[in-house]
Amino acid sequence: MQRQSLTLEDVAREAGVSRATVSRVINEVPSVDPAIRETVRAAIRRTGYTPNRAARSLVTRRAETIALVVSGAGEEDESAQNAFAARVFADPFFGRIVSGVVAFLRTRSMHPVLMFAESGPARDDVLAYLREGRADGALVVSTHAEDPLPPLLAREQVPAVCFARPALPAPVSYVDLAHGEGGRMAAQHLLDRGRRRLATVTGPLDLPAGQQRLAGFRDALERAGMPYVPIAEGGFTLDSGAAAMVRLLEDHPHLDGVFAANDPMAQGVCQVLRERGRRVPQDVAVVGFDDSSVAITCTPPLTTVRQPVEEMARAMARILQEHIEGERTEPTSLIFEPELVVRAST
Amino acid sequence: MQRQSLTLEDVAREAGVSRATVSRVINEVPSVDPAIRETVRAAIRRTGYTPNRAARSLVTRRAETIALVVSGAGEEDESAQNAFAARVFADPFFGRIVSGVVAFLRTRSMHPVLMFAESGPARDDVLAYLREGRADGALVVSTHAEDPLPPLLAREQVPAVCFARPALPAPVSYVDLAHGEGGRMAAQHLLDRGRRRLATVTGPLDLPAGQQRLAGFRDALERAGMPYVPIAEGGFTLDSGAAAMVRLLEDHPHLDGVFAANDPMAQGVCQVLRERGRRVPQDVAVVGFDDSSVAITCTPPLTTVRQPVEEMARAMARILQEHIEGERTEPTSLIFEPELVVRAST
Repeated sequence: MQRQSLTLEDVAREAGVSRATVSRVINEVPSVDPAIRETVRAAIRRTGYTPNRAARSLVTRRAETIALVVSGAGEEDESAQNAFAARVFADPFFGRIVSGVVAFLRTRSMHPVLMFAESGPARDDVLAYLREGRADGALVVSTHAEDPLPPLLAREQVPAVCFARPALPAPVSYVDLAHGEGGRMAAQHLLDRGRRRLATVTGPLDLPAGQQRLAGFRDALERAGMPYVPIAEGGFTLDSGAAAMVRLLEDHPHLDGVFAANDPMAQGVCQVLRERGRRVPQDVAVVGFDDSSVAITCTPPLTTVRQPVEEMARAMARILQEHIEGERTEPTSLIFEPELVVRAST
Repeated sequence: MQRQSLTLEDVAREAGVSRATVSRVINEVPSVDPAIRETVRAAIRRTGYTPNRAARSLVTRRAETIALVVSGAGEEDESAQNAFAARVFADPFFGRIVSGVVAFLRTRSMHPVLMFAESGPARDDVLAYLREGRADGALVVSTHAEDPLPPLLAREQVPAVCFARPALPAPVSYVDLAHGEGGRMAAQHLLDRGRRRLATVTGPLDLPAGQQRLAGFRDALERAGMPYVPIAEGGFTLDSGAAAMVRLLEDHPHLDGVFAANDPMAQGVCQVLRERGRRVPQDVAVVGFDDSSVAITCTPPLTTVRQPVEEMARAMARILQEHIEGERTEPTSLIFEPELVVRAST
């Protein structure tokens, strides 16, 4: 393959500059004159020279890649890894995070290394990978409240940014949503639709997002003079939403409005209501959370609290880049505002 | 950070061997005596030395990472990248591929770099990344029949393995399913259930998987003396399955069995049938394809043709490794057998 035999000298000759200048351009040393930089880049394009990334990494001391880690809280090295990855991807939420991360990184010709840290050994592997400098930092998406990874990353002083506030306190940056505000919006909308016999299917109540969405929902109701609302806890999956709805209907057969703390659970709620002969929204209005793809494919399409996941994920990647490049040295938090999207389910 | 100041010399002193020996162990040169190798490894563990991967890559000429590429056939650099990634992940099928790939790679402390090649510029970026040796090879999951990536990878002599046979012929390895056999199983099962007024919602008919599932389905019916079966083409999404079912019911209101070429489309079929007052399976039996998570969460749970996606993905990663390590030099194909899983929808 001809291109592999090309050297810095070939590019230098083509550009009419020294080998050292070509090297400085390739390693993005800022002091190079912009016109010369353009000349060298044009020569690189014409010759088809491709820099040896490993050699370049030795100079920059960067892997020029970042890890996208989906983490859990397991300890054993379960053969359940398959189930973990499949479960994660079953929620379209995760695809939206990947989407935003890839959108940011590709503007810098970077791509994420995808890692799962669902067990002790897998977590050790992620830590070793980062410690060895095979990635310059980590974007962390936790699926469990007891996830020990964020504090471990902080202790190892690995640049890291979490999607959502870590449940175990740790001095790391994160992006998050004003979940409480979203819960309040859902309650206010159901009240505006004239619904008074409300109930809610919550997310896991050991996760901050689960707690805060419930707290906001309750706040708005108590301001409207409603001190009590029946709740059933779900696990953010369609099945768990359906099971929670079955329990709620047993005790509260006359309810007329339900807030489910994510869209897959709201879909489960709609399925159960339909099976029990309740029309959505005429008999029971349903509000979801996230505005993910299931909100549109659900029967009927879901009114939901939109979380700008792609935008949040882009911001998460940008903050990580600032940490890696030393432009940002202290942890920060960036909170996004939710938005109500009204469709046929209310 | 102390560990960063450790050198090969520190490890050599701790192990009582030469610096060159430590280097050979780290670079996995096979000629090192096993006992000495173990001594050096123990010294590495005790000192906490972490090899500089970039330096090691210069020796092995390997990036020690592989790219997992999801590719399409677009040309323009669409702002639709977000939509592409979100659409890909909306099908649980893709999560199962990731699962299998990660399961294989982690046994070698490797992790995939996730890349999207949905447009011309994104495709160029993937090719440049591989050409520069930032990954040692590519696992390719195509979402479109006109995907130009497999032939391009073959031309560049980049080690690559595709999930499913490339629609545009290319001398690259792939793993695939005996799709036709799966279509035959679906037909035979519906016939065994006494259904005679059959129809099918196909996948995209420019994709080999779409064509072959339909061909197998038709083969089994014509062997049973049924020369004609109504078809409606779908796009492997829930929505497209629902829309196809609406068209089929208009022309064939009395059908009693439907084969949908994947599970999300089968779910759409079930939704439309229920809305039109048809009971599944009493009035219409429905068979899906894949046995993905939606097969279980669907109402009712789906009888489906199981595709062992995780196992296929593991094999795909293994074959790529064989190509990278030079153990395999010619393209190969590995075909898996489908299996019928019977649930409540038939």
